[in-house]
Amino acid sequence: MSQSIDNHERFENLRLELRRGCLSLAVLSQLKTERYGYTLRKALNEQGMEIDEGTALSPASPAREPWTSDQRMEGGRETQQALLSALSSEGKQVLKQLAAEWQSINKSLNGIL
Amino acid sequence: MSQSIDNHERFENLRLELRRGCLSLAVLSQLKTERYGYTLRKALNEQGMEIDEGTALSPASPAREPWTSDQRMEGGRETQQALLSALSSEGKQVLKQLAAEWQSINKSLNGIL
Repeated sequence: MSQSIDNHERFENLRLELRRGCLSLAVLSQLKTERYGYTLRKALNEQGMEIDEGTALSPASPAREPWTSDQRMEGGRETQQALLSALSSEGKQVLKQLAAEWQSINKSLNGIL
Repeated sequence: MSQSIDNHERFENLRLELRRGCLSLAVLSQLKTERYGYTLRKALNEQGMEIDEGTALSPASPAREPWTSDQRMEGGRETQQALLSALSSEGKQVLKQLAAEWQSINKSLNGIL
């Protein structure tokens, strides 16, 4: 990257990278039932997990893998109107593994910082 | 992605995404002094933060932004032999901000999960 990139940009890049993986976990955790993208985002925002359109809910996100990709278009913006299906039993298993991974990372990072 | 992708792969993709951002933070936290990539990785591994070559220490990683990009090639593999410079005062400021971001995400995610 260019040397002219400023510290704010550096921080933003790292911040976005840090949040991205956490957001997938947060999204999956909310899919015990089917949810509209909009209400899901609102619920996460209210719990302090700011979620941008076009990241965790975008079709390119790993959180939108087949087990959550069942969606309807009801006009309007795709990420606003998408209906994310509830996790299948396989999806729930993946969520469980991912939450365990999070706890493990958490423990290590708390020790390191 | 293909429907044929199995759950193990889905989990791995999400796991890698989750770890990636955390690794950058872990790497930065270790750069109070200059460190060789190899010893840095070893130190993080010992604290339970497994770190693959070619992720957090790769030249493409945000953790290898200008403030840490001062490195020597001493033969052997670049990621093994790279000498990462100590954080500048600006780099330290970014680390501080990123650690605060981590605490904030952590708090939210603990509430959500």
